[in-house]
Amino acid sequence: MARSLTSTPAAALRWDGRRLHIVDQTLLPATEQWLDLECAQDTAEAIARLAVRGAPLIGIAAAYGVAMEAARADEASLTAAAAALRAARPTAVNLARAVDRVLDAALAAAPDERGRAARAEAERIHAEEDAASAAIARQGADLLAGARRILTHCNTGALACGGAGSALAVAFELARRGEVSVLACETRPLLQGARLTTWELRRLGVPHELLVDGAAAGLMRRGEVDAVIVGCDRVAANGDVANKVGTYAHALAARAAGIPFVVAGPTSTIDASISSGDEIVIEERAADEVRHAGGALLTAEDTPCRNPAFDVTPAELVTALVTERGIASPPSRASIVALLDGE
Amino acid sequence: MARSLTSTPAAALRWDGRRLHIVDQTLLPATEQWLDLECAQDTAEAIARLAVRGAPLIGIAAAYGVAMEAARADEASLTAAAAALRAARPTAVNLARAVDRVLDAALAAAPDERGRAARAEAERIHAEEDAASAAIARQGADLLAGARRILTHCNTGALACGGAGSALAVAFELARRGEVSVLACETRPLLQGARLTTWELRRLGVPHELLVDGAAAGLMRRGEVDAVIVGCDRVAANGDVANKVGTYAHALAARAAGIPFVVAGPTSTIDASISSGDEIVIEERAADEVRHAGGALLTAEDTPCRNPAFDVTPAELVTALVTERGIASPPSRASIVALLDGE
Repeated sequence: MARSLTSTPAAALRWDGRRLHIVDQTLLPATEQWLDLECAQDTAEAIARLAVRGAPLIGIAAAYGVAMEAARADEASLTAAAAALRAARPTAVNLARAVDRVLDAALAAAPDERGRAARAEAERIHAEEDAASAAIARQGADLLAGARRILTHCNTGALACGGAGSALAVAFELARRGEVSVLACETRPLLQGARLTTWELRRLGVPHELLVDGAAAGLMRRGEVDAVIVGCDRVAANGDVANKVGTYAHALAARAAGIPFVVAGPTSTIDASISSGDEIVIEERAADEVRHAGGALLTAEDTPCRNPAFDVTPAELVTALVTERGIASPPSRASIVALLDGE
Repeated sequence: MARSLTSTPAAALRWDGRRLHIVDQTLLPATEQWLDLECAQDTAEAIARLAVRGAPLIGIAAAYGVAMEAARADEASLTAAAAALRAARPTAVNLARAVDRVLDAALAAAPDERGRAARAEAERIHAEEDAASAAIARQGADLLAGARRILTHCNTGALACGGAGSALAVAFELARRGEVSVLACETRPLLQGARLTTWELRRLGVPHELLVDGAAAGLMRRGEVDAVIVGCDRVAANGDVANKVGTYAHALAARAAGIPFVVAGPTSTIDASISSGDEIVIEERAADEVRHAGGALLTAEDTPCRNPAFDVTPAELVTALVTERGIASPPSRASIVALLDGE
């Protein structure tokens, strides 16, 4: 029986034609505060401190960041601004790709047309990501038809992507079509699952339960999960997937439990230039993220920490990669080439 | 080259012959506050709210809880107090076993000798656990000789056991013998790794780094861990291990990385009466533990949660079970029977 969701996904970013407005995701769910970004530097800072986050969404934000700069900067300044945006976070490939597309569009135009050309290209990227989200939701829900207990990691909803999201948009679409409940992993250290995913699920009226990341594997082993679906920050040519730290353990547990482990994301996250996940640069973030949770200090102020923001799940553990252009199942060099070639 | 550790392990519990003194572990590392427990009910409450924790240590505490009651209660009251202690936490088998041993010793004595008999039995259990810890540390370090980067979960040091601990005591012994560093998983929801394990490691001068639980699998995959060693709350006859939630995912990752996954614990945690881990009761704790971290609210106040406190790692993923009576490697019905029979 199809359920009617009580609301539409919350857009996390608005473009007014001149400036970019984003909800500061570091303050959710306690506070919904919007920030006005006026230049590339504002945007790079917002991306680096995760005020705007999620691989597809930081691509869109960075595209507008270049566009805001293109109208007023000379070529050297614009190129430098683009480089700063590209460097704001190293793992998501679509960030660099979106920056390059808008920069190329600007530089291909006459100097007094750069602003207009860059804005048009950024709006095109935004529209593409919105459309990708809808196509991913539909195809992912077709693939997982019948799954009623969906486990997910991090946040991959409207707060992370264009449209309704990637992995979480699939769960939303499954919930629209029938009875579904979502197990949301809290996603330490920055708790995107606890803070953002539960906020989106509640807003849309989808039944859900929050769990600590370490509890996921045991619940899978006990037969309490029908499928795992996660997003992706970068997919290598062989189908290896970099995603939020903690993802790989869920993939191992899904394999051991014999349930599908599905990755959902736009083709903009596929990086055909790298042959395997071993080549993906894994961002190491500040120790204070591990030492704290929700503002509280958990350990000594100077406890040494490791804080890789992502991990790599080998393609052999991925049941299917769902993109807006189709499904690679299982992902492999051949199935990904076929997808990108539109076969 | 052997290193000299800068301190001795911190005892988390002291028995003065009449009353039990415990450090309130819910307040560590910020505050070292000692509580005086005077009866079985005090002790059961301290166990239930994790002021005293760790399977071996709650067995010792509960033994003294019965002993404090035995001197003054009639048989019916004493039996009821023992039942309340046994029910304080359901997963650790040695809790029930320690309670039964002291209760049996008390009831076998003449009424005016019950207190003395019970105290003697509780002190015997405590001494046995202290000796077990030393034997586990020695044998575990022999087994893992050469491993320099040790990953562990939860807290299994002096704050969890008699003596210097179980799994963490092995790491301490390895550090005493040579160059070792410990990767300590924070262990959500109650952060025993972040709060307690790093505190013990620092106190003993052992190099360490803290990481979120979800980061462990990725570091193993990247070749940054030589061995995983954890404690156990209950071991089934076939070698399946119940331990702190998050353990099973580490075991899967260790297997995938081809590194040893070692379980250390006294034989008091082996429950030969259950044939496999499927029969182990997994304690579900309050949702507020998941909603909060370090006192901070992470999500909505009423977000629904799942909070299993333990998970089960199947014996097939365990390289070795290290006990005070020897090593079952790999653990199996046969190797565990041989261990318990002293072969």
